[in-house]
Amino acid sequence: MLKLFKELTPVNVAQETFMNIIAPINRSEKLAIEKCSGRVLAEDIIAMTNVPHYRRAAMDGYALKAEETLGASRNSPALIKRSETLDPHTCVRVHTGSSLPDNVDAVIMIEDTEAVDHDLVEIRAQVHPYENVGEIGEDIKKRAIVLHKGHHLRPVDISVLASLMTTHTTVRQKPIISIIPTGDELIPRNRKEPPEPGEIIETNTLMTELYVKKWGATTNISRIIPDDPVLIRYAIIEHLGSDMIILCGGTSVGERDHTPEIIEEMGRILTRGIKASPGKPTTLAEIKEKPVLCMPGYPVAGYVALQLFAKPAVKKLAHLPQLPENRTKLPLTEKINSKPGYLTFTRIKIENNTAKPVMTSGASILSSITRSDGYTIIPENIEGYKKGETVEIILTE
Amino acid sequence: MLKLFKELTPVNVAQETFMNIIAPINRSEKLAIEKCSGRVLAEDIIAMTNVPHYRRAAMDGYALKAEETLGASRNSPALIKRSETLDPHTCVRVHTGSSLPDNVDAVIMIEDTEAVDHDLVEIRAQVHPYENVGEIGEDIKKRAIVLHKGHHLRPVDISVLASLMTTHTTVRQKPIISIIPTGDELIPRNRKEPPEPGEIIETNTLMTELYVKKWGATTNISRIIPDDPVLIRYAIIEHLGSDMIILCGGTSVGERDHTPEIIEEMGRILTRGIKASPGKPTTLAEIKEKPVLCMPGYPVAGYVALQLFAKPAVKKLAHLPQLPENRTKLPLTEKINSKPGYLTFTRIKIENNTAKPVMTSGASILSSITRSDGYTIIPENIEGYKKGETVEIILTE
Repeated sequence: MLKLFKELTPVNVAQETFMNIIAPINRSEKLAIEKCSGRVLAEDIIAMTNVPHYRRAAMDGYALKAEETLGASRNSPALIKRSETLDPHTCVRVHTGSSLPDNVDAVIMIEDTEAVDHDLVEIRAQVHPYENVGEIGEDIKKRAIVLHKGHHLRPVDISVLASLMTTHTTVRQKPIISIIPTGDELIPRNRKEPPEPGEIIETNTLMTELYVKKWGATTNISRIIPDDPVLIRYAIIEHLGSDMIILCGGTSVGERDHTPEIIEEMGRILTRGIKASPGKPTTLAEIKEKPVLCMPGYPVAGYVALQLFAKPAVKKLAHLPQLPENRTKLPLTEKINSKPGYLTFTRIKIENNTAKPVMTSGASILSSITRSDGYTIIPENIEGYKKGETVEIILTE
Repeated sequence: MLKLFKELTPVNVAQETFMNIIAPINRSEKLAIEKCSGRVLAEDIIAMTNVPHYRRAAMDGYALKAEETLGASRNSPALIKRSETLDPHTCVRVHTGSSLPDNVDAVIMIEDTEAVDHDLVEIRAQVHPYENVGEIGEDIKKRAIVLHKGHHLRPVDISVLASLMTTHTTVRQKPIISIIPTGDELIPRNRKEPPEPGEIIETNTLMTELYVKKWGATTNISRIIPDDPVLIRYAIIEHLGSDMIILCGGTSVGERDHTPEIIEEMGRILTRGIKASPGKPTTLAEIKEKPVLCMPGYPVAGYVALQLFAKPAVKKLAHLPQLPENRTKLPLTEKINSKPGYLTFTRIKIENNTAKPVMTSGASILSSITRSDGYTIIPENIEGYKKGETVEIILTE
C-alpha cells in the first residue's frame, strides 16, 4: 500500500514543537580553563581575590598628593621634587600597574609633566584625589560573583578567570548525539572495494558528525543499519542513552522507508513531513523523552534538516546561545521560483558581488553542493524573487 | 626623555598596510578527510569515479519505457504489467538509487501510480524519456575537477569527497603564530604563590592563543620576557621562524616600553599608534618579511587589536575567507560619546532587546568585559550616538 505524507507541518511550527520537547542537559565536568573556550559555566564564579589586589597606578606618570597640583597648568606649572620614598611634598615615578604608597592619592599622567632635571618635575595640570588610582577591589571585589552559571565562556572571559587565579572550572558536558545511518543501498565509506551498481557510499553520518561537533556536541556513530524494522528498532534502543538521535534516510514514503512507523510504535511522532523544499521528508519525534530527528538521505535535504532542527537542538541541549548565521545581501542574477506553500531553500553561488542561483536537478546534487556558497530562503507566502532583487544569503558553514 | 606618539594612523590605513605585507603560507600537509573541516585545499580534487557510477533511479517508482505512458493521466490511466525482469511492455518497481536495466529510459514516481493487484500497475501520468533517471557521470564526470585548490572545506564538501571515495587530501598547514608577553610586572598564571603588590598575572597570551586557534592558526607561546631590550630582541629572533609574531604589552610611551624601538632596529615599523579607542598604542611592523603585531597590554585594548589586525592576518596567512562577524541591531538605552577623530569601540550589554552601553573607567576593566555581549563601533567622523538610536552590535566571539 502506498504511504503518503498526510499533512505537512509548516517549518516554524515543526521547529517550535521540536524545541519544546528538548531539555538542556544537567551533566557537568570540571576542566582546566584552557579547555573551556566555547563551553557553558555550570557554576557561579566567585572572585577569591580583590582586583586590583593592591592599590595601583592606572597610568604611567607621577604619584603624589592631589593637593600638590592645585592651580597647576601648562602656563603655570608646579615644580615638585622627585623622590623614591615619597617624603612630604614630593612625587614618585610610577608605571601603569605600579603599587602605590599609602600617602599618595593621585597619579598625574606622564603627558602632563616634564622632568626638568634628575630630581625635579614640572607638573602642568591639576589632578583630583583618586584620579588614575585603582583602589583595592575597585574592579572586582573578593567574594563577588564574576560570572554567572549559564554564561557562555568566550576567550575574553577565560582570561578574566585566569586573572582571578582560577585554574579549573565546572562547565556543562557536551551533549551526546547518536547518528544512525539506515539503508540497504549504503556501504561504509572506508570499504576497500568500490561500490557496485545500486550501492551508495554512506556519507551523511560524516557530514552530520562534523556539523554537530562544530555546534558543540560529541557523537556516537552507529554502523549502517539495513532497511529492516527489527534492526532499526534495535539500533534506536541501543542509542537511547544519548541526548538526541539522528536517523539518516528511510524517512520518505517508499516501501523501504520503515523508520517513521517504527518510531510511532516506540514513542511519539511530532511531525511527519515538513513544508520545506528540499527537506520535505523530515520526521521529528520523541522516544522516552529523547528528541529524534529523521533526516532525509539526500545530502542537500539532509543539510536543510540539520540547519533547521539539529543545530538549534544541539545548542539548546548544550545551554549554548542561538546565534544568527553568517549572512550577506546581494542582488540576484536571475529570477528564482519557489515551491508554493513551502519554505524554499535555493542554493546560491556568489560571483562578482551578485547572487547566482545554482541550478539543480535530482541528478546534480553533489556538484551543486560544492559549487554553492550559501542559500537564500523564500518564505511560504512568496512565489519567488525577481532578477535584480536583493536577497539575503545564509553562507554555508 | 618622554616619548610620544608622533602621528597616529587611521585604522583602515593601518589595516591595509598590515595586510599588504602578509603573504599566505605555502606549506601543506596530507590529512584524512575527517580532519579537514575548516581547512583549505592545497590541490585540485579530481573525481576518480563517475557519479552516479551506474545508471540509477532518481525517484521511488516504476522503471519503464517512457513511450508506454503516452497519453496516461489520472482520468485515463494506462495499465502496465509489473515484472522483475522487465520484459517488453512491463515495468519494474525501483527505489531511489536502484540500478536501472538498459532497456528502460524513465522512472514514473510512485505517487503517480497505483498497484491494482500483485502484477498490474495503474500509470496515472505521462513521463518523458530520461525523466527521473540519473545517467552515469551525469552529476560528476570521472576526471573532472570537483573542488579547486584554495577551496575552504565545509562539512558538506567533505561528504562530497567521501562520496568520491577520497580518503585523504592535501590542505594548507595552519599558520604558526608566536605570542610573546613582555613586562616586568607579569607573573605566569600557573605560579603557586599569589601575586604581590605590583605583580599582575599574565593572561593576554591565553586570550590571544584561544582566539588565534579559533581563527585557524596554531601557536608558539614564549615565556614572559622582562622589559629588557636585550631579552626582548632575543625573544623576537627566537620566534622569527613563525608566520607572525604577536607581542603583548610594552607598546605604549612609558619608560619601560622598549618594544617599538627594538623593532625599528630589527625591521620596519609600519604604524606606531592607531586612531582607535581603546587600542591606540597598537604598533604594526615587519621583521625579515614576517608581520609583527604589538598589542597593548590592557585586555580590552588588546582585544580590539586582535580583532582589527590578528584576525584578518591569520585568515590571510591561512588562505581562509574573511567572513563577517556575528552582528545584531538594537536601540541604545542611553547616548554614547566617541573620542573625536578616533574609531571608538563601546562595549554593549544586551538587555531586553536594547543595547545598554557598559560604563567603563580604567578601574573596571575586567568586570566590564564579563558584563558585555559585544561592542558597537563609532566612526571617526561622528561624535557619538543618541539615546534610542539603533546601532549595530558586533557580538564578542
